[in-house]
Amino acid sequence: MKLNCDLGESFGSWKMGLDEQVMPFLDQANIACGFHAGDPVWMTKTLALAAANGVEVGAHPGYPDLVGFGRRSMNCSHDEIVGLMQYQMAALDGMAQSQGLQMTYVKPHGALYNDMMSKPSVRASIMQAVASFYKPVRLVLQATPESAQHREEAKSAAIDVSFEAFADRCYDDDGRLLSRAKPGAVHNRERMLAQVQQLVSKGTVTSVSGNTLHLDADTLCVHGDNEEGVRAIAAIRELIV
Amino acid sequence: MKLNCDLGESFGSWKMGLDEQVMPFLDQANIACGFHAGDPVWMTKTLALAAANGVEVGAHPGYPDLVGFGRRSMNCSHDEIVGLMQYQMAALDGMAQSQGLQMTYVKPHGALYNDMMSKPSVRASIMQAVASFYKPVRLVLQATPESAQHREEAKSAAIDVSFEAFADRCYDDDGRLLSRAKPGAVHNRERMLAQVQQLVSKGTVTSVSGNTLHLDADTLCVHGDNEEGVRAIAAIRELIV
Amino acid sequence: MKLNCDLGESFGSWKMGLDEQVMPFLDQANIACGFHAGDPVWMTKTLALAAANGVEVGAHPGYPDLVGFGRRSMNCSHDEIVGLMQYQMAALDGMAQSQGLQMTYVKPHGALYNDMMSKPSVRASIMQAVASFYKPVRLVLQATPESAQHREEAKSAAIDVSFEAFADRCYDDDGRLLSRAKPGAVHNRERMLAQVQQLVSKGTVTSVSGNTLHLDADTLCVHGDNEEGVRAIAAIRELIV
Amino acid sequence: MKLNCDLGESFGSWKMGLDEQVMPFLDQANIACGFHAGDPVWMTKTLALAAANGVEVGAHPGYPDLVGFGRRSMNCSHDEIVGLMQYQMAALDGMAQSQGLQMTYVKPHGALYNDMMSKPSVRASIMQAVASFYKPVRLVLQATPESAQHREEAKSAAIDVSFEAFADRCYDDDGRLLSRAKPGAVHNRERMLAQVQQLVSKGTVTSVSGNTLHLDADTLCVHGDNEEGVRAIAAIRELIV
Repeated sequence: MKLNCDLGESFGSWKMGLDEQVMPFLDQANIACGFHAGDPVWMTKTLALAAANGVEVGAHPGYPDLVGFGRRSMNCSHDEIVGLMQYQMAALDGMAQSQGLQMTYVKPHGALYNDMMSKPSVRASIMQAVASFYKPVRLVLQATPESAQHREEAKSAAIDVSFEAFADRCYDDDGRLLSRAKPGAVHNRERMLAQVQQLVSKGTVTSVSGNTLHLDADTLCVHGDNEEGVRAIAAIRELIV
Repeated sequence: MKLNCDLGESFGSWKMGLDEQVMPFLDQANIACGFHAGDPVWMTKTLALAAANGVEVGAHPGYPDLVGFGRRSMNCSHDEIVGLMQYQMAALDGMAQSQGLQMTYVKPHGALYNDMMSKPSVRASIMQAVASFYKPVRLVLQATPESAQHREEAKSAAIDVSFEAFADRCYDDDGRLLSRAKPGAVHNRERMLAQVQQLVSKGTVTSVSGNTLHLDADTLCVHGDNEEGVRAIAAIRELIV
Repeated sequence: MKLNCDLGESFGSWKMGLDEQVMPFLDQANIACGFHAGDPVWMTKTLALAAANGVEVGAHPGYPDLVGFGRRSMNCSHDEIVGLMQYQMAALDGMAQSQGLQMTYVKPHGALYNDMMSKPSVRASIMQAVASFYKPVRLVLQATPESAQHREEAKSAAIDVSFEAFADRCYDDDGRLLSRAKPGAVHNRERMLAQVQQLVSKGTVTSVSGNTLHLDADTLCVHGDNEEGVRAIAAIRELIV
Repeated sequence: MKLNCDLGESFGSWKMGLDEQVMPFLDQANIACGFHAGDPVWMTKTLALAAANGVEVGAHPGYPDLVGFGRRSMNCSHDEIVGLMQYQMAALDGMAQSQGLQMTYVKPHGALYNDMMSKPSVRASIMQAVASFYKPVRLVLQATPESAQHREEAKSAAIDVSFEAFADRCYDDDGRLLSRAKPGAVHNRERMLAQVQQLVSKGTVTSVSGNTLHLDADTLCVHGDNEEGVRAIAAIRELIV
């Protein structure tokens, strides 16, 4: 099990995230590519930080929506999705290579990620974008009960995939994230660590109703937005060695 | 002598340039990369058009200024210039490779190009951006009396350069383009073809005052904004074989 | 019956629409406000053109999506919709007043218009934006069988509304525009003029299946994207006096 | 002497400034208008905060450069400057009126402010923008030895002006701000309060060399970027009653 985190989400004069503190604990840095966050200067800094810490780098492309931080679903066409994915992947890839790094994976951001999980046509467009990229890059999806089906889709598209689970979010009985609007949606520290421990040791999570769900996860998504987040990541890191 | 032209300058629903008509006559397509013009979908289309016509592709990066079409000088720092250059080069490079093409050169656009020619610090930043890009890419500058000096600078930066002349613009006695505000700044068809013929056969242009100036040019910049431009390119093509 | 048209849809160096040719035939100019098209300089020019032709001006706000031309639905919150509506209305209003004009109405653009018609929550947010604007402004909606209900909603929100029909689009049996994907969706010149004549004289349209539908329309939307569009507008103008 | 501060400089998910803490100490809030910072939702929030605290509101327009935060000079034409000024002023004005407030002044931001002070042509364009705005709005310039001349220019343009001094910046012997690159450019708390006291009681500042300079200032610019800034504003407020 790897630890991944969304980084490089500053933009111009606006700082977001405690990247310097978080990076040392990570295996994988998902770096924003300029459409919903990030800019060329921040991408350069974030790549340098990843290089200094020996962290694997991936592209974290989003919808072209800075003011909405890529969190608003946009009704894009197939060509638009392929284009925005490849443009952002390419931008990060070339900048990474210019620092001696390899971009090895791509994980869509925010609404693009949610649309990938919920809309087969968006997922197909994203897989097509990855498949037609000039070099092999893993696509990261959410680990859900549909992971086997997604693996089949990826096989048809001739791309590699990996699946991520969430450390701090409660799962519903269908194996999806419990809506943030529901009570208990976000774990406290104790429950978060218990969920991580269970994922690592048994490959399962306990749902909001107490059911045991299998999750086929290769990597764990953590968040470093504030000091408490950084401490949580440090604690999670001790469980994953 | 090659023929180069700025292409892919449409943006979203806004069409600019007669790329389909111009491409067959070109050797080199300078493709806008999304900061002053172009977007992922248009970049994809323009790359496909270049591939279909066997045309060499280069990045045509600009200042981040869509509404100003990259024609307004922006007072950017060294890090900002390196970043915006590498981001746009990388974006086009990865998308080009995904279509089986190689991006082999970069020519800055508009105000970024003008600043490169007139401001040593901007030129140094641009050369640094090219030098630290992950693979060798030629930088295109304007052929001027300073070309020898620019060649020295490029040698120090360990990058390749090439120089372009302009077909339809009158040169002043210093070997620079006569300001568009001056009478005779833009050649008519006849004078344009004469200038091209002279450049190809003798490597010189005749300045506005009648002086003969040597220009060390590898490539000739043409413009395909309208039907007359396309016809002019066709006529120039016949002179360059 | 008035004639309205979307104008001011150029952006920076990109020209769109034949505004100069269209304006003399119009009663109402829906002017883009910078989020999906238009910019301060084009807004100024378009307002001047409206003033010179004695045409009423309205705001034509869209989603913040230049590259998508406001045609992609974005999942915005209530506060975001109120904000983007009021910002764009205010921008056009103050610029109009600075040319001695009054902005008297607002008609959402593209996906924002479609969402207004199909999603009650978006319509409610838009009505709220208009209601809380500092001065009375009419909201333009599409004339449909739901117009009576929309009139009630507007009454509750304490705003004025008007309804527009389309000259060149075929209606389905439910009184909505036939999808452009369907045959016969866009009228030829003859059928367009017949539809306009019927709307003006009887207040009805004939649907794709031949049914007669009542449409409660105050204004007719026309398009001036090309020469044929301009000629069509001139022909329609002769029917509406 | 009034206290003014730049507020509303957050953008989408990126928070900047401690507006809630700063607002109660101010007389005048310079509110960003969306081109270099701010967005419709933040503008709405900031206007509401100003209303709740009884603070006068002004527009704080900048160059269209989000990633550069409006701090990079852009070589704009007269029409572009007039357009960007009026668009942003109008946007804030209409939104302010919709909350029962009046926008009474405008103070350009960042590089636009610096260009206004150093380039007569930019200043003329800005004065023209204010003069042709649909209602009287004061233009805020920096108090310098040229203030009398600027007052004359404003009189010719038929606009009102006011002048601001800086609390925390050391002045050079020419009455301009000492470059931040120089030692002593930014005052510590003690020197800042002494400078404010001197400005209020005598209308003068002591320059870096110890000269006494008269400054014709109506308002004092303070900064609330962090907790120390807020405390400094509170201390200054006690000196200005």
